[in-house]
Amino acid sequence: MEGVKHFINERSAIVTEALELAVLLGEGKVARLDGYPSIKVLVRTDADRTHVAVVSGGGAGHEPAHAGFVGDGLLTAAVCGEIFASPSVDAVLAAIVSVTGEAGCLLVVKNYTGDRLNFGLAAERARALGLDVEMVVVGDDIALPDAARPRGLAGTLFVHKVAGHLARSGASLAEVRQGAERVALAVRSLGISLSSVTIPGQPSEARLGPDEVELGLGIHGEPGAEKIGIAPVRELAAVLARRLEATLADAPGPLALLVNDLGGVPPIEMAVATQSLLEVLKREVVLVFGPDRLMTSLDMKGLSVSALPLDAALRAALLSPVGPSVWPRGRVLTRMTPLPIPRRLERAPHAPSSHAARRRVVETVCTTLIALEKELDALDAKVGDGDTGSTFATASRALLSALETLPFATPSELCESLSERLATVMGGSSGILLSIGLAAMGTAVAEVPGWPAALRAGVGRIQQYGGAREGDRTMLDALVPAVVALEGGGDLRAAALAARAGAERTKAMKSARAGRSSYVPESALVGVADPGAVAMATIFESLAALA
Amino acid sequence: MEGVKHFINERSAIVTEALELAVLLGEGKVARLDGYPSIKVLVRTDADRTHVAVVSGGGAGHEPAHAGFVGDGLLTAAVCGEIFASPSVDAVLAAIVSVTGEAGCLLVVKNYTGDRLNFGLAAERARALGLDVEMVVVGDDIALPDAARPRGLAGTLFVHKVAGHLARSGASLAEVRQGAERVALAVRSLGISLSSVTIPGQPSEARLGPDEVELGLGIHGEPGAEKIGIAPVRELAAVLARRLEATLADAPGPLALLVNDLGGVPPIEMAVATQSLLEVLKREVVLVFGPDRLMTSLDMKGLSVSALPLDAALRAALLSPVGPSVWPRGRVLTRMTPLPIPRRLERAPHAPSSHAARRRVVETVCTTLIALEKELDALDAKVGDGDTGSTFATASRALLSALETLPFATPSELCESLSERLATVMGGSSGILLSIGLAAMGTAVAEVPGWPAALRAGVGRIQQYGGAREGDRTMLDALVPAVVALEGGGDLRAAALAARAGAERTKAMKSARAGRSSYVPESALVGVADPGAVAMATIFESLAALA
Repeated sequence: MEGVKHFINERSAIVTEALELAVLLGEGKVARLDGYPSIKVLVRTDADRTHVAVVSGGGAGHEPAHAGFVGDGLLTAAVCGEIFASPSVDAVLAAIVSVTGEAGCLLVVKNYTGDRLNFGLAAERARALGLDVEMVVVGDDIALPDAARPRGLAGTLFVHKVAGHLARSGASLAEVRQGAERVALAVRSLGISLSSVTIPGQPSEARLGPDEVELGLGIHGEPGAEKIGIAPVRELAAVLARRLEATLADAPGPLALLVNDLGGVPPIEMAVATQSLLEVLKREVVLVFGPDRLMTSLDMKGLSVSALPLDAALRAALLSPVGPSVWPRGRVLTRMTPLPIPRRLERAPHAPSSHAARRRVVETVCTTLIALEKELDALDAKVGDGDTGSTFATASRALLSALETLPFATPSELCESLSERLATVMGGSSGILLSIGLAAMGTAVAEVPGWPAALRAGVGRIQQYGGAREGDRTMLDALVPAVVALEGGGDLRAAALAARAGAERTKAMKSARAGRSSYVPESALVGVADPGAVAMATIFESLAALA
Repeated sequence: MEGVKHFINERSAIVTEALELAVLLGEGKVARLDGYPSIKVLVRTDADRTHVAVVSGGGAGHEPAHAGFVGDGLLTAAVCGEIFASPSVDAVLAAIVSVTGEAGCLLVVKNYTGDRLNFGLAAERARALGLDVEMVVVGDDIALPDAARPRGLAGTLFVHKVAGHLARSGASLAEVRQGAERVALAVRSLGISLSSVTIPGQPSEARLGPDEVELGLGIHGEPGAEKIGIAPVRELAAVLARRLEATLADAPGPLALLVNDLGGVPPIEMAVATQSLLEVLKREVVLVFGPDRLMTSLDMKGLSVSALPLDAALRAALLSPVGPSVWPRGRVLTRMTPLPIPRRLERAPHAPSSHAARRRVVETVCTTLIALEKELDALDAKVGDGDTGSTFATASRALLSALETLPFATPSELCESLSERLATVMGGSSGILLSIGLAAMGTAVAEVPGWPAALRAGVGRIQQYGGAREGDRTMLDALVPAVVALEGGGDLRAAALAARAGAERTKAMKSARAGRSSYVPESALVGVADPGAVAMATIFESLAALA
């Protein structure tokens, strides 16, 4: 197993370095107080001092909470401790005094003893300094239904949002506190995790078995309330949904959900989990925040769901725009009917038609490639994975068996049909490249009749999409000289000579810049012709013999 | 070690379920084509068909790319394959045909053979249907300086942004292609990782030792170009910075950076890494996108940095607002001077002053608590961790030794001073709680003289911040009855009687809902008084004796 490694410098500087970035990316609207390392406080520089200040914070390790949420319509200041440790009383007091004007200050605190006491003492000291300070404690966790003092989880973010919204609207401290308290009392959260947490600089603790999931956990790596068995996420989501809905049974209104990645869940899994959750919830959900990393627990591979019953005022408060770019814009859940695939793709296949000469060309190319199977496989065994011959031969046999269905009479239709068939019957990159070439030939020959120009168009697209050029040890080393010969007025014989000479030149090419031979050492390549180029040269020779 | 678990349902449904969520949260502006499971295409429903369509895509596992970026000013459609697998030609073609009008369509493709060929063949087929389609291939990886065909990494997002911006502005297909190609040629990216990738349903491969870091990796779990030793992230960042700057030596202009979490780096580490990167880069950086998860590689604990030299037009194109909420708003790098900590916190200490009666009260409380040390420790040993006596006694000795410095003459100053001292000399929650109580008493007594009201205010705050009530087996069980007695007009003797009765009642309290005894089994509590309550009762008794 891989050791747990971290992108950090000195352990003691993790939080201050992270805060430095928040200031650098705060676009001039966020500054820190000059008190490192003991005072780690970010404040708005553009706050309206006639508005109520909203201050929150707590230990670090929950990013983007709280430092990322300082800005218009959210927090006026964030007070940060070390990882998972409450900030000091002095730090909280410095924040309060820095941002509080006549309108007063609301502290939003998650229900952990350390935070409650440190923010509480700071509030008292601020009051002694004559400031008007109130405090709302959030305990949204429903992990332990009988807990006297449930923990504060990501539902706190809804409290920040509503408090920030009210404060910006000019509400009084009492009004902001009431609004915040109403959300704090109404919001419910529950977390689930597949792993525990790794704290930088500490050994990681693995307390979950390979089939265990923790339910009802906090955001500091503490054990969950219970362990349940791993299951498809829609079953896990159903457990969360049932418990959240049970605690909300008496609260009317559609729900706003906040789906919070605790830090280590890849976005695609968060999306699957959220989709499952929306599928199993019985209550109507109208607004979704996330899924995103909003209040993390370092690298915990877990998630939490917060649910808040809405009325019109709350909905407006949650949806008003805010300054901080990491705040998750609430999205209105919208069901959409899938759109039909465009009709023009369902085109009827081209009707079979006759053209003896063109049919003979196709037959000749196919039989030539079938005859070459062993030779090409043997060549490819030296410079690739030994299947060039079989790949060409298999496709050729499939085309031969479909000759009666091809639209030989119309060149563009013939090219299109061959292109479509090759894409399905011929494996590997070469099948798609030839299909591309034939499709381009079909488009070109429909515009300007004449095979040399069509061939040029096809080879051009093969170069463009395949990314190879002449000299790269591919079939292009035979194809390109042949096209040049034809375009210069040469006949098929001249093209065949040019193609063969090109195929011979591949024997001296020491490095393959494209295709499968690019993975083969140079020494293995010397003296061996590229099997794709040999196939093309032989095709031109067989067509020349036909003419 | 913990096994690797995933929040998924059926492995085959991961991508479609994730796409369902993108539609649900697309607010009616995103729909899918009706072709599951083979055709996984999201399209804008609000696109202006007179504008050039911009289509991108590739394998899944890179969320939010590409499905999350469908919307105004970015992608017109995203074509998704299974995890790390290119989408089919049919899927790409369906996307192109669905969104392409007269203005044509630009395909933005990352340079992987499968994507190039499948998008290429689809482009040819679309042309055969009469549509105007162009393709730009992005290869921004600088991991292998001599690579003929570098991979496409997160720098592709800058190409999406500029193409989407130009398309929205009404530019022609040729202009959109030129703008996209210019960015594709100019942007440089490099990745670094601490871990490999875990693909749901597959065993995880651990190819890195505990001291190894992979440099120059792709986004599909393929091995990096080289391994280097783990180091502080500023050294790793310096490696990235030097290499990126070397490849940009000839390109003038300040840089836009895109810092991309490959999926498994906690936000706090991404912040530290980005801060270090900005510190070590010598080139001027003006715009930063991220750090965020933008083009992930499932759960890889790694990051990539993309750098693009800017001119005014590019800067405007990168900064124009877009519809998708997961697009990272570019932020202008801004250095801010730290703000001084407010002066009012640097208040001079209160001048010492005399008041014989108050000094005697403080002395009596302290000597009483010192005398109680062993008794309280013994009580606490039965219901807690055995240090209540020592904690109170230590604080009392410190206060006694500071008596000469206290401002006894002014009640509010005295309370404030005692509060400040207790917060530093008395450990644990009880120290902060008493400090809170004294601070509140100071504020109250300054407003309305009289100790009973002040005591009531202090006890109220202790309840509020401590979260305990009478009956919870704490010092409040003695304090609250004493305050009630005083407020009812009783003297100190009545208060002492009430406090003692309250302390006695704690012997019968079977569960502690707050404080340290909340972790002790019920059976250990019966018959033992709470040591905090006993301390308070004894204090009131000693004060009554004094009066």
